[in-house]
Amino acid sequence: MKLKHIIESQQFTVPSLYDLFERADQMKKIVKRGGTRDYQNKVMATLFYKPSTRTRFSFESAMYRLGGSVLSTEQAKEFSSEIEGENLEDTIRIISNYSDVIVLRHYEEGGAKRAAAVSPVPIINAGDGSGGQHPTQALLDLYTIYSECKTLDGLSVAFVGALDQGRTVRSLAYLLGKFDRIKLYFIAPLEMTIKNDILEYLDERGVSYQLADSTDGIINRVDVVYQTRIDKKRLINKDVKLSQYNIDKNVLSKMKYNSIIMHPLPRSVEIDPAVDTDPRAAYFRQAENGLYVRMALLTMLFENEE
Amino acid sequence: MKLKHIIESQQFTVPSLYDLFERADQMKKIVKRGGTRDYQNKVMATLFYKPSTRTRFSFESAMYRLGGSVLSTEQAKEFSSEIEGENLEDTIRIISNYSDVIVLRHYEEGGAKRAAAVSPVPIINAGDGSGGQHPTQALLDLYTIYSECKTLDGLSVAFVGALDQGRTVRSLAYLLGKFDRIKLYFIAPLEMTIKNDILEYLDERGVSYQLADSTDGIINRVDVVYQTRIDKKRLINKDVKLSQYNIDKNVLSKMKYNSIIMHPLPRSVEIDPAVDTDPRAAYFRQAENGLYVRMALLTMLFENEE
Amino acid sequence: MKLKHIIESQQFTVPSLYDLFERADQMKKIVKRGGTRDYQNKVMATLFYKPSTRTRFSFESAMYRLGGSVLSTEQAKEFSSEIEGENLEDTIRIISNYSDVIVLRHYEEGGAKRAAAVSPVPIINAGDGSGGQHPTQALLDLYTIYSECKTLDGLSVAFVGALDQGRTVRSLAYLLGKFDRIKLYFIAPLEMTIKNDILEYLDERGVSYQLADSTDGIINRVDVVYQTRIDKKRLINKDVKLSQYNIDKNVLSKMKYNSIIMHPLPRSVEIDPAVDTDPRAAYFRQAENGLYVRMALLTMLFENEE
Repeated sequence: MKLKHIIESQQFTVPSLYDLFERADQMKKIVKRGGTRDYQNKVMATLFYKPSTRTRFSFESAMYRLGGSVLSTEQAKEFSSEIEGENLEDTIRIISNYSDVIVLRHYEEGGAKRAAAVSPVPIINAGDGSGGQHPTQALLDLYTIYSECKTLDGLSVAFVGALDQGRTVRSLAYLLGKFDRIKLYFIAPLEMTIKNDILEYLDERGVSYQLADSTDGIINRVDVVYQTRIDKKRLINKDVKLSQYNIDKNVLSKMKYNSIIMHPLPRSVEIDPAVDTDPRAAYFRQAENGLYVRMALLTMLFENEE
Repeated sequence: MKLKHIIESQQFTVPSLYDLFERADQMKKIVKRGGTRDYQNKVMATLFYKPSTRTRFSFESAMYRLGGSVLSTEQAKEFSSEIEGENLEDTIRIISNYSDVIVLRHYEEGGAKRAAAVSPVPIINAGDGSGGQHPTQALLDLYTIYSECKTLDGLSVAFVGALDQGRTVRSLAYLLGKFDRIKLYFIAPLEMTIKNDILEYLDERGVSYQLADSTDGIINRVDVVYQTRIDKKRLINKDVKLSQYNIDKNVLSKMKYNSIIMHPLPRSVEIDPAVDTDPRAAYFRQAENGLYVRMALLTMLFENEE
Repeated sequence: MKLKHIIESQQFTVPSLYDLFERADQMKKIVKRGGTRDYQNKVMATLFYKPSTRTRFSFESAMYRLGGSVLSTEQAKEFSSEIEGENLEDTIRIISNYSDVIVLRHYEEGGAKRAAAVSPVPIINAGDGSGGQHPTQALLDLYTIYSECKTLDGLSVAFVGALDQGRTVRSLAYLLGKFDRIKLYFIAPLEMTIKNDILEYLDERGVSYQLADSTDGIINRVDVVYQTRIDKKRLINKDVKLSQYNIDKNVLSKMKYNSIIMHPLPRSVEIDPAVDTDPRAAYFRQAENGLYVRMALLTMLFENEE
C-alpha cells in the first residue's frame, strides 16, 4: 500500500497491517543494533498544539534512530500570537518548506485531514481532538497484540474502563474487527459503555462481541485485557465500586497464564504497580513498540516519495 | 564581505547582497539534493525570549540541512528565573561556550547589538524589539524579489497596510533604496503612513517614491505588491473601509501578468485565500526562501571563522 | 569506577575524580578540534520538570559534541496532564524506551534516586529539589579548581554568601573534604552560615575550617573565592551591609595574584562586572568546564554499558 499521509486507522487494510508489523519487527532489530543513519538527510517537524511529551518523544526518538533531525514545538499556537486565528492550512504550507514530514497534534477533530489537504509533505496525525483519531496509537496497540500473541486471528479481547470516551479503545476495536474469529468484550459501568457506532460496525462485519458491567466470568477467559482509566466524577450510580474494574494481584491470579494486560498509559489506580513484574504486564512493552511502529511508518512514507 | 555578526540590514552593501543571493541559489540546489553534512560539527543555539515558531523553525531547518545540531529554547527568560534581571551579556557569554552561533530574538531594541559586543561566536539578530531590526526577514524579502523578478534594478514596489509599524516594510524599503531606478509606493490609511526617517533616507539617495491612501491607479502598474496587516482598532476615521486594501481575485485581475504578491505572514483577511493558486502569489515561496537565505548566512559566518 | 547512574557527589572517590578530570581534559581537546561523531547512535533525553535553560543547554551541547541526538522538554509535568500525579517511575520506564540516557531535573529531593531504581538506562541527576543534589555542578566546580590551580591538595577556599541554602556550596565543600591539607572558610551573615551537617563531616575527616561574618583578613590569603548570591530579604540584622560581601576592583586588589574567583551563575550584584576582565575571574571558564565534565560523564556511562 502506498501511504501518502497517516490520518486515520481506516486507511489500513489487513495486508498493509501485516506489512507494517513485519517492518516494525525489522526496526526493533535495527534499534537493538544501534539504529541506522539511512535517513540522515530527513527533517521531521513535530507540531503539537497541545503538549504531550510522551507521544512527542516517541516520534522524535523514531526519527533519531533513523538518523534524522527534528524541529520541535509543544506550543504551536504561538504561531498565531500575532494574529488570532491564523489558519492551520497556512501554517502547514510554511512548515512543509522546512521539513520532510509533519507530525501534527491538533485540538480540533479533522485537523489532520485539513492539514493533509494542503501539505506537499506527509502528515502524521498524532491526535486531533478528543473525539478524533490517533491512528499511530491504534497501530502500536494492534502490533503489541500481534507481537505478544503471535497472531491476530481467533483472539478474545476485553476492553475495561470508560469505553464511551476512549479514542484508543474505539480505534483498536475498529482494527481488530478486520481479523478472523475475534471475540470482543466491552466491560464498563453502564453510563460509560461503548458507543453504538462501533457496535454497528462490528455487527456489519459479523464480529462477535458482548457487553458487561463486570469482569466476572470474562477476565479468566480472554487473551488480552485492554485496561483504561475511569474518571470517578463521571459515575452516576455511587453504589458502584470502581475498584472492581481495577487489576491487582488477585485479579491477575484468575487470568490465563498466556494472556496479556495492556494500557495506553498514563495509568492511575486501575492497575496496581504490584502487577508490573508479572510477565503478563505488557503495557511498558506496548510503549516500547510505539518506537518501532513509528519508525516503520516513517520509512514507509519516505519510500513512497522516492 | 567578512561577516562577524548579523545585526541589521545596514551592514549589507549591494555587492555583498548579490554574493548572498548567489549563495542562496546554491543552497536551494543543495536542499533539493537532500542537504549536506559539511557542517555536522556545528551547533546552533536558538535563544528566543519570545516564541516565534515560524522563524525559529526556519533557522533550525537551515542548520539541519547543513548537517548541524540545534540547542533550542522559546523560554529564554527562564535563565533569569533564579534572579530577576540577569543581564543578557552574562547569558550570551555562557551560551557561547555551548554553541558555534547564537540566533537571538530579544524583547528590547538593541538587544542583538549588546549580545554581539560580548560574544565570541556569531550572533544573528532574529528580531529585537518591535521597533528594532529583523535583518534576515529583510534579506529573504529582497532575495524573493530578486529570485522572482530576476533583477533588483528598475522595479516598482507597492507597500500596502499599516506601514508606520512594519519592521519588515521599513527594512525592505531601506534595502531597495540601494538599487538603481527603483520606484516605491507607500499605500496606507492616513494614520498609518510610513515614517519620515525612511522617506528622508530615500530622498538622500534620490529614490523616487509616492504616498497614497488607495491602491487605485497604482496596483495595476507595479512589479511587486508587499502586503501587510492592518489592525482595525487603530483606524481613526471609521468611514475608511479596510477591505479596499485587501487583495482578492478582483484586485488580482488588475495586476500585471508578471507581477508578484508578497506578505511576511501570518496573514489575516488582507489576502483572500482564493488568490493562493495564482502564480503571482509569491508569499509561500517567500517563506521557503527564508530557508535558503538563512543557510547562506550561516555558511558565510562559519567560513569567516576559519 | 563503574558508573551506572550519577545521582549524588558521594558516589565519587578521589581516584574516580582524577579519572573524570583527565577525561574532561581530553574532551576539551576534542571540542577544540570540532567534536566527535563516536556517539552518533546515542539519544539523550533531558527531562526537566523545572526549566533551567543554562543547565539543559550544557548537557545537550555535551551530547551534540559527542555526535548524539537529544529529546528535550522543560515541561515534563505535561506528562501528567491527563491524570494528576502520574508517578515519576512510570514516566522513566516509558522514556527509557526512547533514549540511552536520561538527564533529570525533578522538583522533589530524592527524585533522581527513585528514577534510577527503575531505569534500565543511566539517570543523571541535574538537580532534585532545593535541598537535594546537583552532582554535575559540584564536579564541574571541583574540575575548575583543579584546572585553574593545577592541584586539589593544600588549597585554601573561601565560600562567601548565603551558605545555609547553597546546594552547590554544600556539595563542593563535601568533595573538597576528600583532599589533603585543605583549609575552608565559610563567610556569611550570621543567619546564613553553613549548616552543621557539613561541619560535622569536615570534623570527622579532620579538615581544617573557619567560620566568619566578614572577608577581612581572609580574602587576601585564599587560593579560591567561591562567591554566591545573598537574598536581601532574608537579612535579619538590617545594620549589616551586604555590599561588604561583594567583590569589586577594590576587593580584587587585595587578593593573591594567582587566586581565582568562582560563581555558579547567574550572578546578581555580588560580583561587579568590572572584575570580569581580570584573569582571576574564573566564572565564565567554570561555565565552559560544565561542557567538558558532562561530556566526560556521558562517555563514562556509555562505556560501562558495553
